[in-house]
Amino acid sequence: MSHLNVQLLLTGDELMTGDILDTNSMAVADALMPLGLVLSRKVVVGDALPQLVSEIESITKQADVLIVNGGLGPTIDDLTAEALAAVIGQPIQEHPQAMAELQAWCERRNYPLNGPNKKQAMLPSGVEIVSNQTGSAPGFKVSHNDCIIVCTPGVPSELAVMLESGIAPLLTELLSTLFGESYTQIKKYQVFGVGESPVQRILAENYPQWPDDIELGFRAAFPMLEVKLTAHSKNGIKLLPEWQSKVEDQLAGHIVAQGNVSLPEALVTLLSDQKKTLALAESCTGGLIASKLTSVAGSSQVFEAGIVSYSNEIKHKVLGVSQATLAEHGAVSEHVVLEMAEGVLALSQSDYAIAVSGVAGPGGGTPDKPVGTCWVAWGKKGALKTKCLFFPAERELFQQYIATAALDLIRRDLLSIDAEPLYFSRSK
Amino acid sequence: MSHLNVQLLLTGDELMTGDILDTNSMAVADALMPLGLVLSRKVVVGDALPQLVSEIESITKQADVLIVNGGLGPTIDDLTAEALAAVIGQPIQEHPQAMAELQAWCERRNYPLNGPNKKQAMLPSGVEIVSNQTGSAPGFKVSHNDCIIVCTPGVPSELAVMLESGIAPLLTELLSTLFGESYTQIKKYQVFGVGESPVQRILAENYPQWPDDIELGFRAAFPMLEVKLTAHSKNGIKLLPEWQSKVEDQLAGHIVAQGNVSLPEALVTLLSDQKKTLALAESCTGGLIASKLTSVAGSSQVFEAGIVSYSNEIKHKVLGVSQATLAEHGAVSEHVVLEMAEGVLALSQSDYAIAVSGVAGPGGGTPDKPVGTCWVAWGKKGALKTKCLFFPAERELFQQYIATAALDLIRRDLLSIDAEPLYFSRSK
Repeated sequence: MSHLNVQLLLTGDELMTGDILDTNSMAVADALMPLGLVLSRKVVVGDALPQLVSEIESITKQADVLIVNGGLGPTIDDLTAEALAAVIGQPIQEHPQAMAELQAWCERRNYPLNGPNKKQAMLPSGVEIVSNQTGSAPGFKVSHNDCIIVCTPGVPSELAVMLESGIAPLLTELLSTLFGESYTQIKKYQVFGVGESPVQRILAENYPQWPDDIELGFRAAFPMLEVKLTAHSKNGIKLLPEWQSKVEDQLAGHIVAQGNVSLPEALVTLLSDQKKTLALAESCTGGLIASKLTSVAGSSQVFEAGIVSYSNEIKHKVLGVSQATLAEHGAVSEHVVLEMAEGVLALSQSDYAIAVSGVAGPGGGTPDKPVGTCWVAWGKKGALKTKCLFFPAERELFQQYIATAALDLIRRDLLSIDAEPLYFSRSK
Repeated sequence: MSHLNVQLLLTGDELMTGDILDTNSMAVADALMPLGLVLSRKVVVGDALPQLVSEIESITKQADVLIVNGGLGPTIDDLTAEALAAVIGQPIQEHPQAMAELQAWCERRNYPLNGPNKKQAMLPSGVEIVSNQTGSAPGFKVSHNDCIIVCTPGVPSELAVMLESGIAPLLTELLSTLFGESYTQIKKYQVFGVGESPVQRILAENYPQWPDDIELGFRAAFPMLEVKLTAHSKNGIKLLPEWQSKVEDQLAGHIVAQGNVSLPEALVTLLSDQKKTLALAESCTGGLIASKLTSVAGSSQVFEAGIVSYSNEIKHKVLGVSQATLAEHGAVSEHVVLEMAEGVLALSQSDYAIAVSGVAGPGGGTPDKPVGTCWVAWGKKGALKTKCLFFPAERELFQQYIATAALDLIRRDLLSIDAEPLYFSRSK
């Protein structure tokens, strides 16, 4: 895939204990992506000198570029310079440029340059400085075993600046020296209403001659499915629009959005463009549909009211569901969600409504309506539709799935999509 | 610290491209922690068979336990079983127990068992199944080079359940076989309403003689703060109860719960125990408070109604906020949240209510009420209190913070806690 073997070595006890989430890996991957590069391998170790030395030595034998992240700070458990010195067989000494940058950094802040800080300018002899424009610890690089080793700071904001100002240019130069111009292009789709296996089958059946120059990838980002086309060559980029159209034709209405746009974002845009409003009557999702919608900036333009009617009393009193319907059919029923939707439409004068009522569990299931059952009503006044979904999973997953399906149903309605979504359902 | 060499191998192209943030590492580290174990090393590679094979082989030569995460799915780029088969020199074949679990999973969902799905029961000969209680792909384990290899699913929710039900017991058994009784004990507190620096200062000032045998740790798990006491020795375990009491005395009402109990869970238990009910009237949080509360099993016993009154019209029509109040004071005002709370109390006959109205942003701020401003009213009928919070942050963080503070205020009311929470606020 990538024509340069780039590896990442992260160091820090805090990465091993679960005390912090590693966001630096993603920052590195994001910086590589526009260059058409993908990390070949990541290794994460604690602050232990022998382990660092052996990992650096072993990675330089496989990789073209090794990015070491972390361990540049002033404290005794910051061991990267020492490890690198051992690997390249050079003594640690004061690096004049590093010291000058450190002094300038302290002066700008009116900080005295103390002993622990000075440690950050003690580097293996022969390394070249990669400036740190935000923090005190300079980065540095050196070549070993035909591999370029770049040591970078663990503080995310410092790393971000160094990736952009120091490392991306270095890699660009390296790539152009080695390969001339670069060729990568990526197209991503957010998909809902069809699973990973059916999508693979559909595409495999319809396009057995899928081109080698375009890589097809899938990722289950529950409850969404991401489908990604990556072109890695000049020819791939030329072919990409044609194969994009083919994927779009096959997945059609199941494609919620392109790129990283979420379903709630896509829906708010759609409602906004069509100047329509949506109201919600939620039972088993308990406000999650409203919460997803209102997490989007600008949602107040398209959303007026959400009623979380957890009790039958509130279903009756606020939404006007009749006591007789509740008694005869039960709260989890087609009749009740229809009356809930009608009720919230009347209350809010919105154009569209969604109503859901189901058994989230773990309690409350019956043989007739087991945990995971959910009735949904959705649509416009006088044109409401219903569906019975079935997703017997842990409570929060059930709520996530139902909320997503509900929003997707309105999206399909607004776009007049005919293709039936393959939601998890029960035969009536 | 850890006397067992446990390593983690993560696989998935999406981990290398920066498409997703690796949260599974943290889940694994969190599962190891109560056992006194820390990961020795993590390696992350894409979906490439030769690389997987060589990493597994090389790790088993160093480690006592190797947890492989990812690559168990139904698609062609899921390669873990194939890689393991190559490593242990066994053929891939249909595993009867895996197939039985897969069939049961499909049956529960009324799903046909298709070809790609069946792949998940095709495992290296001789492996033992580690049940997946939430997803379709079973985990499995086998011993090689005196290292126990456990293969686990990449879907975070499935991994979480498997860590608890399958892997923690396996490691506990292994530890007790190898080392007898273990001497690590951990006590964790969920804290809200006071920041990390004040907590550190309070404890340092009051207890300068903190014992070496008990490690004090902090983790910002936004918007909560986790405070952790870890005893690593026989003496530490003996001292633990005494130092726990000291921490509890100092943090008092700011402690929401012990262990991993969440604020919504603690609140549902509290309401349940006191046989009280809660109703919600939300504007800027858009259903998030209701959603947090109803994510807890059993919340239907204590929660009847949530009104997401995004428009003034609904605030008036459903909650009975007077048009005059809205016109005179604006929707984001002390008067309006008071009337919203009174309205939802009247509507639902609940014992307690929360009402919030604020400026979530990015638009809608004024010099008088900038983005981040939020009025909250909470309490019992006739005894409502109000507060003006100020948390100028990105929209979703603002909503998370306000929803958490709102739930915390009711918790403090139910427990008659006097200690004033140090929320982010504006002077009135």
